[in-house]
Amino acid sequence: MLRLGPLAAARCLRSLSLLWPPRSPGPLGGCGLLSRRVRGALGGSAGGGRSLVLKTPKGTRDHHPAHVVLRDRLLATVIACFKRHGAAPLDTPVLELRETLVGKYGEGAKLIYELQDQGGELLALRYDLTVPFARYLATNKLSTMKRYQVAKVYRRDNPATTRGRHREFYQCDFDIAGQFDPMIPDAECLKVMHEILSDLQLGDFIIKVNHRLVLNGVFAACGIPESKFISMCSTVDKLDKMSWEEVRSEMVAEKGLCPEAAERIGDYVRLQGGLELIEQLLQDPKLSQNKLAREGLGDMKLLFEYLTLFGITGKIRFDLSLARGLDYYTGVIYEAVLLQQEGQAGEEPLGVGSVAGGGRYDGLVGMFDPKGRRVPCVGVSIGIERIFSILERRLKASGEKIRTTETQVLVATPHRHLLAARLQLISELWGAGIKAEMLYRKDPKLLKQLQYCEDTGIPLAAIVGEQELADGVVKLRDVSTRQEVDIPRAELVDEIRRRLEP
Amino acid sequence: MLRLGPLAAARCLRSLSLLWPPRSPGPLGGCGLLSRRVRGALGGSAGGGRSLVLKTPKGTRDHHPAHVVLRDRLLATVIACFKRHGAAPLDTPVLELRETLVGKYGEGAKLIYELQDQGGELLALRYDLTVPFARYLATNKLSTMKRYQVAKVYRRDNPATTRGRHREFYQCDFDIAGQFDPMIPDAECLKVMHEILSDLQLGDFIIKVNHRLVLNGVFAACGIPESKFISMCSTVDKLDKMSWEEVRSEMVAEKGLCPEAAERIGDYVRLQGGLELIEQLLQDPKLSQNKLAREGLGDMKLLFEYLTLFGITGKIRFDLSLARGLDYYTGVIYEAVLLQQEGQAGEEPLGVGSVAGGGRYDGLVGMFDPKGRRVPCVGVSIGIERIFSILERRLKASGEKIRTTETQVLVATPHRHLLAARLQLISELWGAGIKAEMLYRKDPKLLKQLQYCEDTGIPLAAIVGEQELADGVVKLRDVSTRQEVDIPRAELVDEIRRRLEP
Repeated sequence: MLRLGPLAAARCLRSLSLLWPPRSPGPLGGCGLLSRRVRGALGGSAGGGRSLVLKTPKGTRDHHPAHVVLRDRLLATVIACFKRHGAAPLDTPVLELRETLVGKYGEGAKLIYELQDQGGELLALRYDLTVPFARYLATNKLSTMKRYQVAKVYRRDNPATTRGRHREFYQCDFDIAGQFDPMIPDAECLKVMHEILSDLQLGDFIIKVNHRLVLNGVFAACGIPESKFISMCSTVDKLDKMSWEEVRSEMVAEKGLCPEAAERIGDYVRLQGGLELIEQLLQDPKLSQNKLAREGLGDMKLLFEYLTLFGITGKIRFDLSLARGLDYYTGVIYEAVLLQQEGQAGEEPLGVGSVAGGGRYDGLVGMFDPKGRRVPCVGVSIGIERIFSILERRLKASGEKIRTTETQVLVATPHRHLLAARLQLISELWGAGIKAEMLYRKDPKLLKQLQYCEDTGIPLAAIVGEQELADGVVKLRDVSTRQEVDIPRAELVDEIRRRLEP
Repeated sequence: MLRLGPLAAARCLRSLSLLWPPRSPGPLGGCGLLSRRVRGALGGSAGGGRSLVLKTPKGTRDHHPAHVVLRDRLLATVIACFKRHGAAPLDTPVLELRETLVGKYGEGAKLIYELQDQGGELLALRYDLTVPFARYLATNKLSTMKRYQVAKVYRRDNPATTRGRHREFYQCDFDIAGQFDPMIPDAECLKVMHEILSDLQLGDFIIKVNHRLVLNGVFAACGIPESKFISMCSTVDKLDKMSWEEVRSEMVAEKGLCPEAAERIGDYVRLQGGLELIEQLLQDPKLSQNKLAREGLGDMKLLFEYLTLFGITGKIRFDLSLARGLDYYTGVIYEAVLLQQEGQAGEEPLGVGSVAGGGRYDGLVGMFDPKGRRVPCVGVSIGIERIFSILERRLKASGEKIRTTETQVLVATPHRHLLAARLQLISELWGAGIKAEMLYRKDPKLLKQLQYCEDTGIPLAAIVGEQELADGVVKLRDVSTRQEVDIPRAELVDEIRRRLEP
């Protein structure tokens, strides 16, 4: 039972409120009255009844317990992979100086959240984890580091929450900084991406790879002036959503290219393939004349060699239309796309989309260094929200129940006047590291206590009544089979541990 | 070797940069040049050489890997306790509507970070996790919930970073919402606090407990008008830092009390004790006449009964000077204080300080509910930053090294032209779930590879040379003993697992 909407969460909890019906006026009723009096005496802040807007900011949301439990499973898989590859954890502030973020995101800049002037400091919320990482390397004068960071980032985007797009969302980043032999860290980033998407069992996927130098070489070979390279990149990048005819018309009508140049570009950027395509382009009469293209294709050839040794070329595709929007990429770029699975009845298509991406950014740290000292970097970012939407839907379809707590034992009593016995027993269990709960009632009915176990998935109930206290035992009940056995009190903890062994 | 300052971190990494000396111009040199050209062509954002302020915002900091590893250990202990008590995880946005935060924090309000108007929405960064929890309960119309949340909160306080005070810091909150029988959830919150401080082995501590109704009863019994209750609370709260004479003089000179009333208050708020003090006050001629005091003392007596059953009264002290600053408390309030340990040579005193606190707030959810519907709540918040400062210092003194990565095996080669062998072997290990690294060099010296193991604490090296490849074995080296054994390739993964068993 995975329920993530606010209403659904209310429904989940309703069973609890049935168990513990709110009484009014309850034992603490006088207290509530007083608090209202005190608030009044204080000049009173917003009291009950004032019309408050009861919501989270646009594009943000509360994550209900079932959501957090599922997300944490997902993040654990991602982090396990990052650790398997030897990355160290880093944590940077949510707040950055505005000037740190300026000029790094191209079109994205207008989506940055800015704070009010905090007495001289102009601050913003981080937009990604890459720029803070580069700032960190420069601040600490580090020339090598392999780090991961899993944290929320902020973008004032138009939220499309149904497609997993939000204004506050997690990024999971793995980056390798340092001057190393070419393509070895780049290949590892692709391996990391491949492992995570395989581990998460998201179905079939493909990782598109390209190289900024190859793109630049193509543009140069087609006679495009260097000043138009980035603008061309953003147009080419639309090929995954638009037809070539539309892209060509944007090049000619909006970007002012002559139709022949556009056609020449089109001949290249529609190419897709593997090692054989790289070889073919290395022989291409126009491209092979261009220094940028030769360098980029040389990198790509080496990369594919390493990916072959890793055994993952089956899901890698050299795709000349991949350009990626961010200004800071300088070398290999890549993006993982989930392939639509046919024939899954009853599912609306979620839309095939990018779930991870990254690339090489050799100039970013230098932008922060007073002496322009270069620290080459390459990294990958996993877009957890989109993957989460897919897993959430799959879980719903499977009907698997998600427990939001890990409680192993409910400490219960069969009749009245036994609160002290419950408090003492639960204290013993907590002391032994057993996860235990009890109802917050002096004299709850046994049926309600057992019903609570069923509702929340607690596997065992430890029951103490007068008879059990007199006999020095506890009645241990298996909630699913309803079998009950008297266990000597001194052996209870061991017996619980034995029962809970996987 | 725990090193947390930026310089120290640079020092930590220096050994790595010795292993992988930056070459200039390296194999990717052309790429960097180009990226600068491309940036220039783009109208150029901040290039290397421009004077950037390379820092994090005032009062915030980067958390270096060793810091994160230690902090995660600490948080794991705290979260384990929350789960042991059956709490479910909740996650709310860092951003809240400003009006959600207004009027909840008394004097604290001026410390709230506000954002620039985001097209009609006035936003702020969360100041604590309690108000968002209350807003969540009201939004989702929940009447019962036991949740924990571990997340960063934001306060534009004057940072005293040496004492563990920052503008961005973690809070670890555990709260129980619902109308239950009195003092049962309150007692569990104190038990949670007691367990966490014991589990963290922070040395001796005391948990001060008081009750807002007892305080109000004292003020009423001393003839203070209700309008001055909160103002009196904040003066009384200073008794842990000021002498009674100073506090009395503030009451008389600043708050306009007559000296006799101040003396009468002083007779009460300097009282400390346990169950016997509660009994004594229940017999007190003035207090026993007061309805508020009788109710508060009745709660306290019940609470102490439950705490006795939990076996934790040894560290609990009824302290009538405890008042706590936040407006929203309505019942029991508490605060845990570490006791200064005498005679630890060479340590500057960190200052005795509060490391956890909380209380009952029965009116807060109603402030958000359109119908003023009450949801009584009680909770505890663990102040992780201060505890972290203590653990950090202790670790430094102990000389324990913190590994920032979990790598189990370095895949190494003893001579040149074996990159392919390394890539294949490491891929096998990753596939088997082994945490493995290799140096990002085509032909690294064996000595450098082994030195890297020593520097970063990797326990095993898996070495493949021509001979090993020919024999179908891998040389497995124990880094600490320097013993090497040839292992058949097919048995390598099992052998590594065997060696790493705890």
